[in-house]
Amino acid sequence: MGDTSNLPIDGARLWTDLMDLAAITDPDRPYTRRSFSALFLEGRTWLSRRFQEAGLDVRIDAGGNLIGRMEGSDPAGRTIMIGSHSDTVPSGGRFDGTAGVITALEVVRSLRDAGRTTRHAIEVVDFLAEEPSEYGLSCVGSRAMTGMLPAQMAGYQDGRGEKLLDAIDRVGGRIDRIGDARRDDIAAFFELHIEQGIVLETGGIDLGLVTSIAGIARIEVIFEGRADHAGTTPMGLRSDAGVAAAQCVCAVSELAASYASANRGHFVATAGVVDISPNAANVVPGRARLLLDIRSEDRVFTHEFLKELDARTRDIATACRVERPGWTVLSDTTPSLCDPDLLDLLRQGADDLGFSTLCMASGAGHDAAFLTHVAPAAMVFVPCRDGRSHAPEEWAEPDAIAAGAATIYEAVLRFDARRPQDTQDQES
Amino acid sequence: MGDTSNLPIDGARLWTDLMDLAAITDPDRPYTRRSFSALFLEGRTWLSRRFQEAGLDVRIDAGGNLIGRMEGSDPAGRTIMIGSHSDTVPSGGRFDGTAGVITALEVVRSLRDAGRTTRHAIEVVDFLAEEPSEYGLSCVGSRAMTGMLPAQMAGYQDGRGEKLLDAIDRVGGRIDRIGDARRDDIAAFFELHIEQGIVLETGGIDLGLVTSIAGIARIEVIFEGRADHAGTTPMGLRSDAGVAAAQCVCAVSELAASYASANRGHFVATAGVVDISPNAANVVPGRARLLLDIRSEDRVFTHEFLKELDARTRDIATACRVERPGWTVLSDTTPSLCDPDLLDLLRQGADDLGFSTLCMASGAGHDAAFLTHVAPAAMVFVPCRDGRSHAPEEWAEPDAIAAGAATIYEAVLRFDARRPQDTQDQES
Repeated sequence: MGDTSNLPIDGARLWTDLMDLAAITDPDRPYTRRSFSALFLEGRTWLSRRFQEAGLDVRIDAGGNLIGRMEGSDPAGRTIMIGSHSDTVPSGGRFDGTAGVITALEVVRSLRDAGRTTRHAIEVVDFLAEEPSEYGLSCVGSRAMTGMLPAQMAGYQDGRGEKLLDAIDRVGGRIDRIGDARRDDIAAFFELHIEQGIVLETGGIDLGLVTSIAGIARIEVIFEGRADHAGTTPMGLRSDAGVAAAQCVCAVSELAASYASANRGHFVATAGVVDISPNAANVVPGRARLLLDIRSEDRVFTHEFLKELDARTRDIATACRVERPGWTVLSDTTPSLCDPDLLDLLRQGADDLGFSTLCMASGAGHDAAFLTHVAPAAMVFVPCRDGRSHAPEEWAEPDAIAAGAATIYEAVLRFDARRPQDTQDQES
Repeated sequence: MGDTSNLPIDGARLWTDLMDLAAITDPDRPYTRRSFSALFLEGRTWLSRRFQEAGLDVRIDAGGNLIGRMEGSDPAGRTIMIGSHSDTVPSGGRFDGTAGVITALEVVRSLRDAGRTTRHAIEVVDFLAEEPSEYGLSCVGSRAMTGMLPAQMAGYQDGRGEKLLDAIDRVGGRIDRIGDARRDDIAAFFELHIEQGIVLETGGIDLGLVTSIAGIARIEVIFEGRADHAGTTPMGLRSDAGVAAAQCVCAVSELAASYASANRGHFVATAGVVDISPNAANVVPGRARLLLDIRSEDRVFTHEFLKELDARTRDIATACRVERPGWTVLSDTTPSLCDPDLLDLLRQGADDLGFSTLCMASGAGHDAAFLTHVAPAAMVFVPCRDGRSHAPEEWAEPDAIAAGAATIYEAVLRFDARRPQDTQDQES
């Protein structure tokens, strides 16, 4: 790895903040700080204080995103945005999302410490609910910021019947003014994230420069049978929604394995959520709900998979004598391309700092994927141990994160230093 | 159906009490009054008051059973016990268990109203946690009353880590004196219950006389894989505990269908509980827990099934690259025989009242199955609509329950009226 002893950012300060934020977790289930939860709000209170200590103007936008802003020297200038998310999956790790939020904070702090003023305003953002929330939707905040949170998604409900739109208000958003969250003033967006894979580690490469982000489809499948007594209902007379759900999970796994080996790029499909009802040992399951996650670099390929699975699950329902009242596409994002110009600035920064880089696709979804719809956007990946993520063992080295943060610092300065006519940035 | 206009019990009073108790439910999920819950305790408070109003001495025994006692005229006499349970499955019905508890209360009230004193003391009992509780165990109270709640079961934990023994204390039991719950003074035990099947309804028969109760085995199966990122982990490198669990559910269903058609009597197997962890859309399931329920009239047959399923689930774990750290027999009860003498008294009572009866096996487990180990015990089944049970639509006709209660009333009087030398009752 390149030399990290003399970086333009303070890697130790960044690391301390990252560990302090990670400590705000459900103690019985580290590291858990689910979006919309009390712990999530505690984390945001901590973040707000840190943003304020860095001299930033702090606000929550209508989409529930936490934003800290440092004005630029050019009042007519647009905004350079840097950030990621602070929410976690259940029993997740200490880096997914938070490394990008704290990196953004550290970049701004380091600019201030160095007495660098920028023409552009710079905003540090903690996007709301990047991870799939209890409402079955991910990237809630970046969807809102890019005008991609339609009303029907805002109506999604969690298991207790709370609507997403009410949850957004509960964490400080303004669903009645959700359009205000839509931004058209972003000149460039940068996001640092752990790779969540093993490419960089395997290749001994310092940093990944993300050229594209896989599209993600999320499907809710519901089977409805009859909640009969498990002791007295003969096998041949059951309408067991649990068996239908199990056959569906098997079908997803089998079908995905064959698609993944079809040489049409990265393809994965997962049944990550299985809810059986009433979920009691002596009752035949009367209802089952599955959430499926399908990712590929090729949307057509995803849709072929969904068509085939749709037919298979209908057949399963018939064979199990249950209904399949639910087959809902909760979300279906297109693969996203990062901005070549920003990637080039990142590469220049990494080169100057002595860090090796590799251009790569991201199998994971990120807030940056939404940002590509309203602004040039680019991502930096840092290696993580064994590719492990969404698990307590998730780990990235302090030096690796510092290298990524310093690279973004350099890219921000390079972007800001350009004469307007050098860029596609239209603020002047 | 026989004439119910002139019964020795008050069917209308019985029905009113039954509906009043049913109204104590989670309003969002009728009819739910899970053992150990706040609603369960509210139901018991209501029951205690009713017991007291009937002139009974009310106590909770060391096993957490709620007992109302009417002393007999013979101080050396033993006890006739009548009862069932007041807890429900989630989204259960208004009759399973409660019909037997309120019937017991009505029998005692009717004896008092008629000025009948009995030689035997009579106890009305609400057994603790007959339905499978959050602790993975059913018939907690009747196990305790028959000395069949060993320490290792008392140590079972619910999802939050509370031990069953602490939960028993929490509802008024005394785990430090659990041996006191063991009874050797019961001369006869009667339980009324809805059939939870369609035999009586199909045959147009008023009452079932239960000759045997199927044995029930409950197995906990745990699969452990690795909670990887659903976007970046290739299909071929996953250790997906959810897929293993799904294959296990399919295997249970397939294998049970073949056993059920083997002409060795009633056989059913159910995967009623499926818990996936972390149960998030974008995380490969790292852990899965299943509770299986297997019932047959032949314990050897059950054990053949378990041996085959044990082997199959090991193979599934290997194929899915996960571990199977858990294969735990939580309980394994033998099929139970009801007492022919008590059944004969019940038949005489039904005959005299003009109700038709049918001898039958019970596919469902009951507290009576445990009582057969310490006392002569017998059950009366009343028909229920479409055989539906463990569901909100569960329904039994008021006249059917009144007929069953009156039949038990008659059997109790017949039993009590015998000269000691006529019986196997050893109190004199």
